Amino acid sequence: MSLVVVGSVAYDSIETPLGARTDMLGGSGTFFSIAASAFTKTSLVAVVGEDFAKDDLALLESHGVDLAGLVTAPGRTFRWGGRYHDDMNSRDTLFTELNVFESFEPVLSPAQRESGFVFLGNIQPKLQDHVLEQVRSPRFVAADTMNLWINVARTELCDVLRRVDALFVNDEEARMLTSKRSVVLAAREIQALGPSLVVIKRGEHGAIVFNDDDIFYVPAYPLERVVDPTGAGDSFAGAFVGYLEATGDLSPENVRRAAVVGSLMASFCVEGYGVERLKRIDRIAVRERYQAFAELVRFGALDV
Amino acid sequence: MSLVVVGSVAYDSIETPLGARTDMLGGSGTFFSIAASAFTKTSLVAVVGEDFAKDDLALLESHGVDLAGLVTAPGRTFRWGGRYHDDMNSRDTLFTELNVFESFEPVLSPAQRESGFVFLGNIQPKLQDHVLEQVRSPRFVAADTMNLWINVARTELCDVLRRVDALFVNDEEARMLTSKRSVVLAAREIQALGPSLVVIKRGEHGAIVFNDDDIFYVPAYPLERVVDPTGAGDSFAGAFVGYLEATGDLSPENVRRAAVVGSLMASFCVEGYGVERLKRIDRIAVRERYQAFAELVRFGALDV
Repeated sequence: MSLVVVGSVAYDSIETPLGARTDMLGGSGTFFSIAASAFTKTSLVAVVGEDFAKDDLALLESHGVDLAGLVTAPGRTFRWGGRYHDDMNSRDTLFTELNVFESFEPVLSPAQRESGFVFLGNIQPKLQDHVLEQVRSPRFVAADTMNLWINVARTELCDVLRRVDALFVNDEEARMLTSKRSVVLAAREIQALGPSLVVIKRGEHGAIVFNDDDIFYVPAYPLERVVDPTGAGDSFAGAFVGYLEATGDLSPENVRRAAVVGSLMASFCVEGYGVERLKRIDRIAVRERYQAFAELVRFGALDV
Repeated sequence: MSLVVVGSVAYDSIETPLGARTDMLGGSGTFFSIAASAFTKTSLVAVVGEDFAKDDLALLESHGVDLAGLVTAPGRTFRWGGRYHDDMNSRDTLFTELNVFESFEPVLSPAQRESGFVFLGNIQPKLQDHVLEQVRSPRFVAADTMNLWINVARTELCDVLRRVDALFVNDEEARMLTSKRSVVLAAREIQALGPSLVVIKRGEHGAIVFNDDDIFYVPAYPLERVVDPTGAGDSFAGAFVGYLEATGDLSPENVRRAAVVGSLMASFCVEGYGVERLKRIDRIAVRERYQAFAELVRFGALDV
């Protein structure tokens, strides 16, 4: 198996101005794996509780996700609850029940240790490091993080950053990590910490990709209706890294394509609650929306 | 003269996290005219006070702005003061001194009444209507507005909207005008009120252009340093409408080019205080940054 992801598998309860849902399948590992499945198979390293539903296991398996690294531990599955504000761009966490996630110690199988592509989902930097230690000779390592780890585990996070090729953060996190107001300067400073590829995610405004000296701006797809933004960032990363692994091409041109594929998968994700829309996306839907992205930003040469 | 603009000419005092300036030349009419001057000459309908500096008149004239419609009235020039927040995306108004602007009644000269292109800057909708009444047979009318008029003069604003081809608003204003959360749905609803072309400006995130059924996403240029965001929206509109007037081509393809030109001129504007950077931009600088925009969003066909 060539793409291994460590992250959370969770049950999410969310409230939006449009409605509410309880105990939906979620978590960074879940969104990442399902998004990546349009291009490649992932091997998921995660933990669930004894309450984890067979249907949800079956859903992951039907997307070709290798579950050899999914541990079932005594207790309940990680649960998260959040409420989105009117603009759907910001949210409050209502509760976090770590449950089995609290004592999660990711252990990679012999096959997973040979992975070429690694995604370190948004977990404690020490655990990210622990995973990375176990991979023998990765070709491409990408990581996600969040404001919590920037605040309470900056040193450990910087240790991880020295060893990754790519970091996915939102603009607020990029500013926190660097104290730079300009996302351009923030990205440059993060590059100096390690990752040559820095993806600044901006929610409904898309993302800016800093890949060595190359700067690429990918929009978010303008949607008539955003149902549930949960998992958009992980879907972005899943499609991005999954596409790179599937093509095996890390050239700047292909990284740009990967970013478009990431943004389009995020746009599918937010069109449904949890994974309900994402899980239905196939290669044909991806190709169609890719064309729509090309049309969205197309313009001709200046004639004055 | 074929492009007439009605708007404010002001002295702005601004504070940003980087510094402060007092009594700089500003106002929607000023930014619009100077931005448009890269492509065409504008005829400015506005009012200034007896304190208006000869140097500032000379600056406008040096950009080919026709000042036959610039009235000097007894009293002081319109003044505005604002303080930008740390993110440079939001600001507080510190003071507004209408001064001579309070009794401004725009009167167009016989030549201005024959204009083909009209820009109604962000002034009271009744005044926008009064200007429009005076133009004999315009080919293209664009308008700007703001939250104040949406709140206190919605009926008059809707009267104006029925008669314009294009509206420039930010996403907050679009949502206020329509009560739609989605900018796509908000733009559709504004189109139903009159303008077939709706430009939703999003500050550092660029703009989305809804032109009948065509949707175009233009990024903002990622800058290392934003000095002063004042006038970015008016510079956007000035370059956009000025380019359309200069080319005389209202095709969807050319409207896309106009939007890029608008966004790039806004990016120049915010690189200096007031008009200090904008006033130095020539056709060569425009062409170079246009190429940079093309490079910024370029991506190839999908190969999976």
